[in-house]
Amino acid sequence: MQHALELTGLFAFAMSGALMAIRRDFDVIGIAFLAVITALGGGILRDVALGDTPPPAFTEWEYLVVPLAGAAVAFFAHSALERLTRALLVFDAAGLGLFCVTGTVKALDHGLAPVAAAALGVTPAAGGGLLRDVIARETPALFRPDTELYAVPAIAGALLVAVAWELDAYEPVLGAVAAAAVFGFRLLAIRQDWRAPRAWRRG
Amino acid sequence: MQHALELTGLFAFAMSGALMAIRRDFDVIGIAFLAVITALGGGILRDVALGDTPPPAFTEWEYLVVPLAGAAVAFFAHSALERLTRALLVFDAAGLGLFCVTGTVKALDHGLAPVAAAALGVTPAAGGGLLRDVIARETPALFRPDTELYAVPAIAGALLVAVAWELDAYEPVLGAVAAAAVFGFRLLAIRQDWRAPRAWRRG
Amino acid sequence: MQHALELTGLFAFAMSGALMAIRRDFDVIGIAFLAVITALGGGILRDVALGDTPPPAFTEWEYLVVPLAGAAVAFFAHSALERLTRALLVFDAAGLGLFCVTGTVKALDHGLAPVAAAALGVTPAAGGGLLRDVIARETPALFRPDTELYAVPAIAGALLVAVAWELDAYEPVLGAVAAAAVFGFRLLAIRQDWRAPRAWRRG
Repeated sequence: MQHALELTGLFAFAMSGALMAIRRDFDVIGIAFLAVITALGGGILRDVALGDTPPPAFTEWEYLVVPLAGAAVAFFAHSALERLTRALLVFDAAGLGLFCVTGTVKALDHGLAPVAAAALGVTPAAGGGLLRDVIARETPALFRPDTELYAVPAIAGALLVAVAWELDAYEPVLGAVAAAAVFGFRLLAIRQDWRAPRAWRRG
Repeated sequence: MQHALELTGLFAFAMSGALMAIRRDFDVIGIAFLAVITALGGGILRDVALGDTPPPAFTEWEYLVVPLAGAAVAFFAHSALERLTRALLVFDAAGLGLFCVTGTVKALDHGLAPVAAAALGVTPAAGGGLLRDVIARETPALFRPDTELYAVPAIAGALLVAVAWELDAYEPVLGAVAAAAVFGFRLLAIRQDWRAPRAWRRG
Repeated sequence: MQHALELTGLFAFAMSGALMAIRRDFDVIGIAFLAVITALGGGILRDVALGDTPPPAFTEWEYLVVPLAGAAVAFFAHSALERLTRALLVFDAAGLGLFCVTGTVKALDHGLAPVAAAALGVTPAAGGGLLRDVIARETPALFRPDTELYAVPAIAGALLVAVAWELDAYEPVLGAVAAAAVFGFRLLAIRQDWRAPRAWRRG
């Protein structure tokens, strides 16, 4: 079931990459590339930083095929999908919750200290979107003060996992709870329009 | 002979990086850096992803010296070179053909499955130009619908090599034929103005 | 003492990243991220290229905490800091001198040839600022002809170290002298407004 959820998340990430490429009028190569890099780029960065090479994104065929399928769907159905962006955000949030937990567990497994594991652990969830925006020459959505909280729930979930691990209290069920909490937190942030603060300015 | 062709390709890639830097009014450091990253960046990305570190780009001196020589030529002769861009495209196409084959063989050698090997295999050929455009803040030429096919011939050649490998039918001579076919395909695309499609829009 | 100097340099680098993020109106996540990537990104790139994974930036907690502290200071005190940018440049120059020497020594230690070691060795000093500018969508300060020499002193120092190493004449004290020379060279470049040349143009 975790694997099915993982592929669903990758599909949603890929869709956001493909739709961005179409908005920027990239050709089919650009659409496929941006879909793949948005879905897999963050995880590849984490794996390369951990020395886990070649990354599973390259050795397990479904990790590459799912984003390519997402790109193909977007290629034909992008105008319908643009009307479904709110729905896509739900799947994206599921990916966010899942990947920040699995990402942190993998980093802890490689011996990283809690804060570093959380920082690297959110990369599979948030790094792909950052690469997407840099390549498409957009201000990173991750950092824009007018977008709803994205990294904040992921970091909170990652820190929760890291602290539990440090206290030898980590269990897979706790990971599932953390992923669900991140998912709910993110959806609530979208609904309630919660945003991260800008730099502090004297009143 | 392959090595000579390789260095010729790197020289052409470096030239495209250096000329871009000059067009963007970068200083001599930017010209040298963009020449080197355009020539070597894609191969370094592939090697790091495969865990082949430090990459040959850093351990074999000629891989660094050739792009720096390209930068030096561009530094002095850029206005003449701007008139030779069509000629440079021929050398660039030679590099494209050669690197997508050698890149894919290396990825297959590291145990990657065919599609992933092809995807990573075109990185040495196409990744440097992408890095060049991101750093120079240009829309990536690789993805622009008004540029002639570049990634498409490379991916076709890489897939050919990967499939032959999978069927245990790969021979160096087949690699040479694939590289030559990519080279010819790319030149034909330039001559005939073939382009990759944009996202599909209902008439 | 070297460690204290190192953390001071990271703090100055982080500050330049955080202030850039604030200028671009990024939110608190963007401020923290850009501070961390400006301070640590170059070193992480070098370590990943050398195969030294996970990089010390992730395994030693102070390397992550110091840039985050820099981000926190900038978050509250950015308007005061903007008036101190000349002072910050002094600490930045100290980091430049130190990191180009330690970076080169590490690359030589991993068996790289002198020129490649110098090229990779300046990455911890200069790579973070390049990543900062690419993510913030600025023309890289490193390459702008209207900024004072930055990479040139670092490359000079790195080459000095590499040549001494090659001649078996490297001693820690020589490294300290090289770092100090880079520091002085950079400050002099700022004071005297020395800049790197643009591409050569016939009178």
